[in-house]
Amino acid sequence: MLSQEMLALGKKSSAIREIFEYSKKRKAQIGAENVYDFSLGNPSIPAPRQVNEEIRRLLTCDSVDLHGYTSAAGDMQTRQTIAENIARRFGFSADAGLIYMTCGAAASLTVSLKALLQPGDEVLLLAPYFPEYKVFVENAGARVRVVACPEPRFGLDLQALENAIDQNTRAIILNSPNNPTGAVFPEEDIRGLAALLTQKSAQYHRPITLLADEPYRELVYDNTFVPYLPNYYDDTVVCYSYSKALSLPGERIGYILVSPKATAAADTFAAICGAGRSMGYVCAPSLFQQIAKVCDGIAPDLSGYDKNRRLLYDSLTQMGYSAVYPQGAFYLFVKSLEPDAAAFCEKAKQHELLLVPGDSFGAPGYVRIAYCVSTHQIQRSLPAFQKLIEEYHL
Amino acid sequence: MLSQEMLALGKKSSAIREIFEYSKKRKAQIGAENVYDFSLGNPSIPAPRQVNEEIRRLLTCDSVDLHGYTSAAGDMQTRQTIAENIARRFGFSADAGLIYMTCGAAASLTVSLKALLQPGDEVLLLAPYFPEYKVFVENAGARVRVVACPEPRFGLDLQALENAIDQNTRAIILNSPNNPTGAVFPEEDIRGLAALLTQKSAQYHRPITLLADEPYRELVYDNTFVPYLPNYYDDTVVCYSYSKALSLPGERIGYILVSPKATAAADTFAAICGAGRSMGYVCAPSLFQQIAKVCDGIAPDLSGYDKNRRLLYDSLTQMGYSAVYPQGAFYLFVKSLEPDAAAFCEKAKQHELLLVPGDSFGAPGYVRIAYCVSTHQIQRSLPAFQKLIEEYHL
Repeated sequence: MLSQEMLALGKKSSAIREIFEYSKKRKAQIGAENVYDFSLGNPSIPAPRQVNEEIRRLLTCDSVDLHGYTSAAGDMQTRQTIAENIARRFGFSADAGLIYMTCGAAASLTVSLKALLQPGDEVLLLAPYFPEYKVFVENAGARVRVVACPEPRFGLDLQALENAIDQNTRAIILNSPNNPTGAVFPEEDIRGLAALLTQKSAQYHRPITLLADEPYRELVYDNTFVPYLPNYYDDTVVCYSYSKALSLPGERIGYILVSPKATAAADTFAAICGAGRSMGYVCAPSLFQQIAKVCDGIAPDLSGYDKNRRLLYDSLTQMGYSAVYPQGAFYLFVKSLEPDAAAFCEKAKQHELLLVPGDSFGAPGYVRIAYCVSTHQIQRSLPAFQKLIEEYHL
Repeated sequence: MLSQEMLALGKKSSAIREIFEYSKKRKAQIGAENVYDFSLGNPSIPAPRQVNEEIRRLLTCDSVDLHGYTSAAGDMQTRQTIAENIARRFGFSADAGLIYMTCGAAASLTVSLKALLQPGDEVLLLAPYFPEYKVFVENAGARVRVVACPEPRFGLDLQALENAIDQNTRAIILNSPNNPTGAVFPEEDIRGLAALLTQKSAQYHRPITLLADEPYRELVYDNTFVPYLPNYYDDTVVCYSYSKALSLPGERIGYILVSPKATAAADTFAAICGAGRSMGYVCAPSLFQQIAKVCDGIAPDLSGYDKNRRLLYDSLTQMGYSAVYPQGAFYLFVKSLEPDAAAFCEKAKQHELLLVPGDSFGAPGYVRIAYCVSTHQIQRSLPAFQKLIEEYHL
């Protein structure tokens, strides 16, 4: 009597969410400071001061205007501001008419995928990948095909990608800076990918869309260059979110940008509007659309994350762990101390260390540590990491 | 290369949204005060003062807590408050663990439908009905069957309903107070419906779920009694929204409540969580979940709408129009002056009156007038309504 797929999806909640719920219970039992929860990508730095300042100012405006419906695609002034910022920051001529405001990155993806995909289509995922991609592609009635990015740097494997593309390939999701590795795909990789997709689109007489999932675009360290994908490949759809950049993950605000140079750009945008409508996304939250207008492009203060990144990477590698040195986002991807990462995470749990096994990211043998926590938590957790590795080396 | 269904849905935007967009353009041409836009159910009364007061207070709280993710089903304190308010107001033992916070009424419906429906299932709609119901049911892979509520009062036709129910009937959507008629289904109708659904569920050995779409629950006039459906029928899922009650339609906040007495209530809730997840609804906007906690159940000041209701109903019926006397919501459903309501709306447009034809509501020959506008707009529009009827009677 119920949708069996939805029931299965609801019962087997995501590994990350499960640990998040366990963490809440465990903290209530032994005190929050004694649980080292590294499971969730919930930003730990406050929103930039401009966010709350602008909310205060907006509260003096007309309530009906402020809290009313916007157009389904979003407030036009917000969309224009975003297009102008993109032109200024990346030298790309975005079209405000091809920007669709969304309820965050997940909605950006589900709406785009539902617009683009038809039954029988395949979407390429680059492992390691955000586990919900699979759920979102299947919601759109299509299938995923996974192509591994080779260790230890998890860069693109163009030969493997070429082998994986066939007449069913409709899109590829690229997430850079990457969750869970923290890697940023270098310009050389992007150029190679763009050339491959151009060639394959021509070969199969249908465009392969590059879905740029960019919630971590503003979270980059050491001045690492993050290529703006629409500058390299025309059939690009950018899925953006303010969750991590402005520390507003619960507020659900982001956007989809269709490149004006994409094949059938206007129709693609119309299909996006249709997909949003069909899933009940009436409009993105109106107050936070106004916040996006004022705060789009504000560089977050990353000093806290950067400090955590160095402290955690240096400490763990000194202990004997091996990890990818992250250039962006706020995750450290660490090699499990035994082949079964889930078993390793269970042992870590005995030390109150809550880590996420890489299996659900398509990268068995690794664990993800979200370091968007207090530096204090990392400092307090180091003896537990030490004990954990000693357990394996005894 | 695109989903043809989504493209069609995006290109043919809803009749209401289309008029809304026309209205914006027309207002820019001849001045906002000269366009009598009665198309959109966008509340015109400000949010209750408690909303902005509470936002101001929340801005003094910890930013990371305030703007962070909540559990996928929502903040537990908010859900508990809602359950307590339901117990107090309606004498119904709601279970906070079976309340799922959503991004508004549309999301409440799409998520519930996707959880409940399997291919081949049918959902009964009672005409006149909100046009997007059809889009939402089809998004869940099922079909609608429409049962007309007879003129002039648009109450339930239990015999027609009985004839329409068969082994494929999985759910029925009931919207009371009703959009577009403003009618409230009386307790006698609800008792009859509950008895029929109970009988038919037993006959076909599968529960028929009553989806109570309740965005207008708090918008009721003349002390009209609105039965709380879970008190009458166990297999009820309530889809609630704060959009109209708190004048927050753009903020996208509402909830789904599964009756604890429903068949497989826990599994139904799990499937709802799965459906929300599959469509990218990570959590409902966190700031407005806090607003829901404080403002749930606040009675809106309806005096403005009530004044509009009387003024519009009295004026139009005196001119010779015939209309349903609305007991709730903020719509007046008026008989078109010619059989083709779309043609009638085109003539009305010549007088700058923007009305919505009943066709898309499954009620041809009628038009919907949303009176959630300023009383001033209604007063100014009356000569135009007068000229319009004279055009027909000349």
